[in-house]
Amino acid sequence: MNQIALLENDLLLKVAKGEKVDRPPVWIMRQAGRYLPEYMAVRKQARSFRAMIEKPELAAEFTFQPIDLIVVDAAIIFSDILVIPEAIGLPYEMIPGKGPFFPNTVRSASELNKLHSIAEESNLDDTYAALKLVKKELAGRVPLIGFAGAPWTIFCYMAEGSGSKTFSIPKSILYQDPVFSHNLLEKITEATITYLKGQIAAGVDIVQIFDSWAGILHKDTYMEFAFPYIQRICEEIQGVPKIVFAKGAFYALEELAKLDCQVIGLDWQTQPSFALDRISKQALQGNLDPCLVYAPDDIIVEKTEALIRSFPKGRHIVNLGHGMYPDMKPEKLKLLVQTVKQFRYDS
Amino acid sequence: MNQIALLENDLLLKVAKGEKVDRPPVWIMRQAGRYLPEYMAVRKQARSFRAMIEKPELAAEFTFQPIDLIVVDAAIIFSDILVIPEAIGLPYEMIPGKGPFFPNTVRSASELNKLHSIAEESNLDDTYAALKLVKKELAGRVPLIGFAGAPWTIFCYMAEGSGSKTFSIPKSILYQDPVFSHNLLEKITEATITYLKGQIAAGVDIVQIFDSWAGILHKDTYMEFAFPYIQRICEEIQGVPKIVFAKGAFYALEELAKLDCQVIGLDWQTQPSFALDRISKQALQGNLDPCLVYAPDDIIVEKTEALIRSFPKGRHIVNLGHGMYPDMKPEKLKLLVQTVKQFRYDS
Repeated sequence: MNQIALLENDLLLKVAKGEKVDRPPVWIMRQAGRYLPEYMAVRKQARSFRAMIEKPELAAEFTFQPIDLIVVDAAIIFSDILVIPEAIGLPYEMIPGKGPFFPNTVRSASELNKLHSIAEESNLDDTYAALKLVKKELAGRVPLIGFAGAPWTIFCYMAEGSGSKTFSIPKSILYQDPVFSHNLLEKITEATITYLKGQIAAGVDIVQIFDSWAGILHKDTYMEFAFPYIQRICEEIQGVPKIVFAKGAFYALEELAKLDCQVIGLDWQTQPSFALDRISKQALQGNLDPCLVYAPDDIIVEKTEALIRSFPKGRHIVNLGHGMYPDMKPEKLKLLVQTVKQFRYDS
Repeated sequence: MNQIALLENDLLLKVAKGEKVDRPPVWIMRQAGRYLPEYMAVRKQARSFRAMIEKPELAAEFTFQPIDLIVVDAAIIFSDILVIPEAIGLPYEMIPGKGPFFPNTVRSASELNKLHSIAEESNLDDTYAALKLVKKELAGRVPLIGFAGAPWTIFCYMAEGSGSKTFSIPKSILYQDPVFSHNLLEKITEATITYLKGQIAAGVDIVQIFDSWAGILHKDTYMEFAFPYIQRICEEIQGVPKIVFAKGAFYALEELAKLDCQVIGLDWQTQPSFALDRISKQALQGNLDPCLVYAPDDIIVEKTEALIRSFPKGRHIVNLGHGMYPDMKPEKLKLLVQTVKQFRYDS
């Protein structure tokens, strides 16, 4: 069964597979979220952020909103990268206005030993259920993106116990206890592979791996503690295209180019020409400055078209270089998306 | 009068001037600060952070502590980049545990019009007084570093009104009102030039310009709104060597290399070879991962020596790639500094 043949809009998958397109596809990181009044209205019904991702009907509704309202070329499941720590025995809460908080952390072998593998039944089943629901309701309109955090990024939260400006605790653990660090990263990697395989079984057409905290490492530590685990995930996950987005890892683009993945995501600090000099195989995703969404209409149109022209035809997926901010205006994002949809490559 | 001849330890100035040295000099960003118990003890005497920089005797004491305790090769005046907004009419407070807060912000021409030039007498006189005190008490032991924020970084705080993860307000103003943006940047630049000239008159041997928020822009906006103002400062400030540290501006190293400055500071994400491929004239300062200070002793020694070996002899000033964190241990920093001081270049 050819999935692409069943999709009405298969632009994203075509670019990931190196097939010909007449314009780039566009989707936006955090396209479901607080900037949408419709999201805020539904959110009020939920007890908490956690309750929203644990209720497949709500997660499905949030996943759909930007498809209907912004008319992007792909749906990305409404979920959270931190479901993985929870699934292996490290629960967390989402504190309003503050972000994630883990009552316990993992900084030593004894704490690592308390973790478990993903159980027969787990919180991940909520994501799988939401995916199945979305997949069915999408009825082939656009591709469905699944995702997971990269092991290094998940390690950051599990060791730090919360968000942080510096993540100095996980970073110092890399220096202080490399053996423990690799063991925990290994554990996270195994769970992530299981999770992504589960998402594929539930119907996702493509997956993205988010290494949100790549940019706080430098090349040596990245190549020792982050890259090999993404590499293993890319090797083990087959059957759907893979997008790897290592935010801030400009120093490792040559290495990311060697991954068994079809798309490399770029933050907005990375110039298209800089990436193209280092990546010759994969398609590139990004990389507008998120703050462009605050710009006057003519600037949005101008910069979006200029971005498209700076990537080779058919090797580009339009996105921001990071996610939407809560105070952004939906109509501005709509204009950006519309600009992409009206663009045509020279034939 | 030759200043260098009067200094006992002139390593930093020698490297800035391209003269021969047998080991690299070392100083550390935020070498005066909360990680030192001696700092915390004196800090208790002060009403607030602001009161510490406004009292020349206290500022001088803090400036001296790392010279006596860590035995670094340079003193950097204990002050704050935000004295410039204050000096041109935008006062701020330092909220304990939160950071800077400006009761008013500058986001429009009418708010810009309320600002003034630096008055005959201003808060900057406190810094000048502290510098004179330090200079006298140093009695030529080590060079004295003065500093200022780069105009873009100061613009960030004046428009946002506080610290921020994204500085989305100043960034969006660049798109929404480039004319206002340039006018405010111009105003900040003029004040910064006056301030640095005042610091030179008060006795500093070298100055550093901190563009702490360079990394949230991309090359186009950096070259339009940040770089030209640093360029002007570098052209107007003469008589002492200049260090430019644009954190996160890996994308603009080729351009920074063209500045009329003697040293380029590097964050830890920038590999030495990456910088050396782009900068051929200036000395390079940095760029150890700050979290190395948490590492076991043998790792600190190994990584510090490896860093020195990765830069050409005589073109390197050892520093971290960013400042010290409050929970770091002074003895670890002492080991790092000692490692540099015991190093000898092959002759």
